[in-house]
Amino acid sequence: MSKSNTYVALLYGADQPGLVAKNAGWIHERQGNILHADQHLDQSEGIFFQRLEWTMSAAAEDIGRMGSDFVSFASGSGMRAEIACLGRRPRVVIMVSKTDHCLHDLALRWRAGETRADRVGVVSNHEDSAEVAGRYDLPFRLVPVARDTESEAEARRLELLNEMGADLVMLARYMQVLSPMKLQRIGRPVINIHYSFLPAFAAGHPYHQAHARGVKLIGATAHYATSDLDEGPIIHQDVCRVTHRHDVADLIRMGKDLEERVLAKAVMWHLDRRVLVFSNKTVGFE
Amino acid sequence: MSKSNTYVALLYGADQPGLVAKNAGWIHERQGNILHADQHLDQSEGIFFQRLEWTMSAAAEDIGRMGSDFVSFASGSGMRAEIACLGRRPRVVIMVSKTDHCLHDLALRWRAGETRADRVGVVSNHEDSAEVAGRYDLPFRLVPVARDTESEAEARRLELLNEMGADLVMLARYMQVLSPMKLQRIGRPVINIHYSFLPAFAAGHPYHQAHARGVKLIGATAHYATSDLDEGPIIHQDVCRVTHRHDVADLIRMGKDLEERVLAKAVMWHLDRRVLVFSNKTVGFE
Amino acid sequence: MSKSNTYVALLYGADQPGLVAKNAGWIHERQGNILHADQHLDQSEGIFFQRLEWTMSAAAEDIGRMGSDFVSFASGSGMRAEIACLGRRPRVVIMVSKTDHCLHDLALRWRAGETRADRVGVVSNHEDSAEVAGRYDLPFRLVPVARDTESEAEARRLELLNEMGADLVMLARYMQVLSPMKLQRIGRPVINIHYSFLPAFAAGHPYHQAHARGVKLIGATAHYATSDLDEGPIIHQDVCRVTHRHDVADLIRMGKDLEERVLAKAVMWHLDRRVLVFSNKTVGFE
Amino acid sequence: MSKSNTYVALLYGADQPGLVAKNAGWIHERQGNILHADQHLDQSEGIFFQRLEWTMSAAAEDIGRMGSDFVSFASGSGMRAEIACLGRRPRVVIMVSKTDHCLHDLALRWRAGETRADRVGVVSNHEDSAEVAGRYDLPFRLVPVARDTESEAEARRLELLNEMGADLVMLARYMQVLSPMKLQRIGRPVINIHYSFLPAFAAGHPYHQAHARGVKLIGATAHYATSDLDEGPIIHQDVCRVTHRHDVADLIRMGKDLEERVLAKAVMWHLDRRVLVFSNKTVGFE
Repeated sequence: MSKSNTYVALLYGADQPGLVAKNAGWIHERQGNILHADQHLDQSEGIFFQRLEWTMSAAAEDIGRMGSDFVSFASGSGMRAEIACLGRRPRVVIMVSKTDHCLHDLALRWRAGETRADRVGVVSNHEDSAEVAGRYDLPFRLVPVARDTESEAEARRLELLNEMGADLVMLARYMQVLSPMKLQRIGRPVINIHYSFLPAFAAGHPYHQAHARGVKLIGATAHYATSDLDEGPIIHQDVCRVTHRHDVADLIRMGKDLEERVLAKAVMWHLDRRVLVFSNKTVGFE
Repeated sequence: MSKSNTYVALLYGADQPGLVAKNAGWIHERQGNILHADQHLDQSEGIFFQRLEWTMSAAAEDIGRMGSDFVSFASGSGMRAEIACLGRRPRVVIMVSKTDHCLHDLALRWRAGETRADRVGVVSNHEDSAEVAGRYDLPFRLVPVARDTESEAEARRLELLNEMGADLVMLARYMQVLSPMKLQRIGRPVINIHYSFLPAFAAGHPYHQAHARGVKLIGATAHYATSDLDEGPIIHQDVCRVTHRHDVADLIRMGKDLEERVLAKAVMWHLDRRVLVFSNKTVGFE
Repeated sequence: MSKSNTYVALLYGADQPGLVAKNAGWIHERQGNILHADQHLDQSEGIFFQRLEWTMSAAAEDIGRMGSDFVSFASGSGMRAEIACLGRRPRVVIMVSKTDHCLHDLALRWRAGETRADRVGVVSNHEDSAEVAGRYDLPFRLVPVARDTESEAEARRLELLNEMGADLVMLARYMQVLSPMKLQRIGRPVINIHYSFLPAFAAGHPYHQAHARGVKLIGATAHYATSDLDEGPIIHQDVCRVTHRHDVADLIRMGKDLEERVLAKAVMWHLDRRVLVFSNKTVGFE
Repeated sequence: MSKSNTYVALLYGADQPGLVAKNAGWIHERQGNILHADQHLDQSEGIFFQRLEWTMSAAAEDIGRMGSDFVSFASGSGMRAEIACLGRRPRVVIMVSKTDHCLHDLALRWRAGETRADRVGVVSNHEDSAEVAGRYDLPFRLVPVARDTESEAEARRLELLNEMGADLVMLARYMQVLSPMKLQRIGRPVINIHYSFLPAFAAGHPYHQAHARGVKLIGATAHYATSDLDEGPIIHQDVCRVTHRHDVADLIRMGKDLEERVLAKAVMWHLDRRVLVFSNKTVGFE
């Protein structure tokens, strides 16, 4: 189904009476029909969160102008808002190192039409994924990383993201640590898959850590990489059961499925604009 | 927290533009503040579903009148609505036979303050649960059942439910089959726990059936007993993993935990008025 | 790691004292070292089940002869046994129709080295999967099916399985019903993925059935197709949670992940010779 | 079923050829019949682990002597072994503070005959649980704790555990920190329930920590309290899903069910002698 006349707004701010009516009224006055209106009130903080999805009977209204109108309107109630048209497919760049199972998984979901996005390319610090990217007709760009050329590499990565017009960057097992400063300079949402149940086993070699600790469940966590790599707002997590019979190689193998599912769900939620970041947490409108 | 000025409305009907704004506007005009507004649009059927929860700054407004006003208002948009004040605790009667683990579980949740309801008594066809009911200071009423006295027994059960002023009946492992006609005569919502993953293994001895079939997961299902006992709208289901090592006694033991959790969650959802029955299915507003 | 000197025996029969010692003794006498010895006693039926995995320090011993020796030895205790060398990779044929996500998933697992098997080809009743098979360098054979040519088609399928030397046939979303007689004539283990939590929603369109019934979990079941298609011994099952928000298309999309995981695990268990069929159930040695 | 002639041995040591045969042979020579023989080989460490469960046709054999004979025999192969008769019910002491849901849960499982143990009493640092202990006819001993009387309190606790003849101590939400030295002096297995998915959120107020971090799953962990309270070998863990809608009070309520299940399963495994501690991890024979 074409979504060219479907819009989503995410907004939040200090709670006050009448917000649901006010926001819905604004849409109704413009002959919009609300498909989903999910709202959450954080009673301890007094913050109102909302996701509105609606269609316009005619696509007459200019999205750019409607967006800025809605943002102004919402700011009149002290709300911060962002709006998007689901008909405009975000442009997604996948960053990957040698481990390519998430890249395969994402590419196959795209082929199956599950993901509302345009994939515009793969950026990697290793040549290994070039062949995989090619299989799915994904432009591949190599940005090798060496200790003494990291600043050039960073500049090159940013240049590529700009060239590709990336709206979203996925770190689909990209093993190069990006400092807070570098993440900030990316200037776009970055979703990372960490292969542990955060905050357990942050940093390197989480499956080795999990095996050494003797946990009975392993996990994966998809989160926004807003500042420190493993500390950003969590979007989705899942776990699977392990026993003493599983060695590190088994955990890695079993974790692959987890990582794929968790990353894919987080990305789909983001693309459907179901995720609102507030403070260091996410509100996920199901 | 007292909920004496908190109200919930559940409503549904043919979709039309402006419903969210209209309903929220009605509440806002009466100085209500919406806490939760969840809405679902079944796009294939064109049906709009909504759950609204709001507080009135003063409890001045008479709930009875506000309720009937809202129902009238909603019916003006072709919606069927029901409204409740969360400050009024529903009266719940538990029906149980010999197996008493769900009775224990529910009574402990009540003691822990988890369930927004008044428990008004236990009705059983066996004396076995009298002692358990007594432990929790629950009035116990025995209605023995024999083939040739079933019509008297049914009359007695209905009389007790009326005396007790039951708003909700829980079949917490009540093993007496209630015919559609009898269920209809009860005239109140009835929630049953069936100890299988329905529609698999309906009817008798589901754990024996599950063991005989060699399934690798067992389940439990909480549903409204609206007509045929195991065919009513499903509220909640869950499963747990079993292996060849588990015999029927193990399945029964493992199933106990499942049954307790599934029934408790279904009942809590019902009491918080999160469940809307439509056709033979439920919409569960989380 | 090469498994050329690793052997697995699966055996079962009426229980009697001393079987564990006897079987382990037989291996020890031949200088074998047991890696895993899992055993299960079905106390209600009095049946002893065992999986033994061991290495021979030298591969001197001829596997063919050792196998038949062990089978004879076991039959001396009234046991039925089968033995395999893990160094011999079974030859697997995948049968698929139009829906190709399980084919992708299995092929990727093979590439990742997760599956101890040789994939020898894809047999399909539709041309659609030819391109996918080609991507993974899998020989593709088309056997179109029409009502009046089904007997020729069956003969052709059997001929192909023989030519390919298939040890295992996977019905990875093969939508052509195979009658009990046809399944029997295949003469090899056949693993099918059924996209429901059997025995719920057997037969056609299980996701449509699940949606119509309003279940809160959907499932997938991998089983041996021994006789009636959906009635064979279950190897593995799993479920995922759904809500009223999910339409049939969502169930189909969410079910894809389930089907892939459940089928892959069942196949891996089979290939590692962890599954023993007894009566209409499986003993799965983890 | 009486288990008076059923024995379990847990053993481990450096792997060597013939252990399975040797151990099973020892039992067979004494006319024992093996019910379960589970074995695990940690190939990276070269350690052999085994759980043997067998019946003696006559209970003639003295368990004390058979136990010490087996331990000697096993040590001949360099194995450390312990043996138990399942007919002897271990004596369990529950330590609890104010939060009593695990106490209720364990007591109800005992009443239902699920736990192969004698419950010999409750030791608490608060009077609050006295009434609950009384409901289940459990002797209750109060050992109040104050900063300046902790050494007397510790002495009193040890005295009580000795008097009660405790074989196992359960910390079923006992909120007093026991130092490594104190734990060591207890001189008996101690199982603790920690209300997070360890190693995430060790130390105090794990649900508050989980809420602050915005995790999407909460967990519970049952582990042996061998040294540092939250660092001991993990026996069992489980999680449940949470969303932004759940505040800390919800996490606490949802966690209750998790804690009960996880602790109960760990205790049952321990009592059935399915848990073997090695290094800082457990081997759990299912």
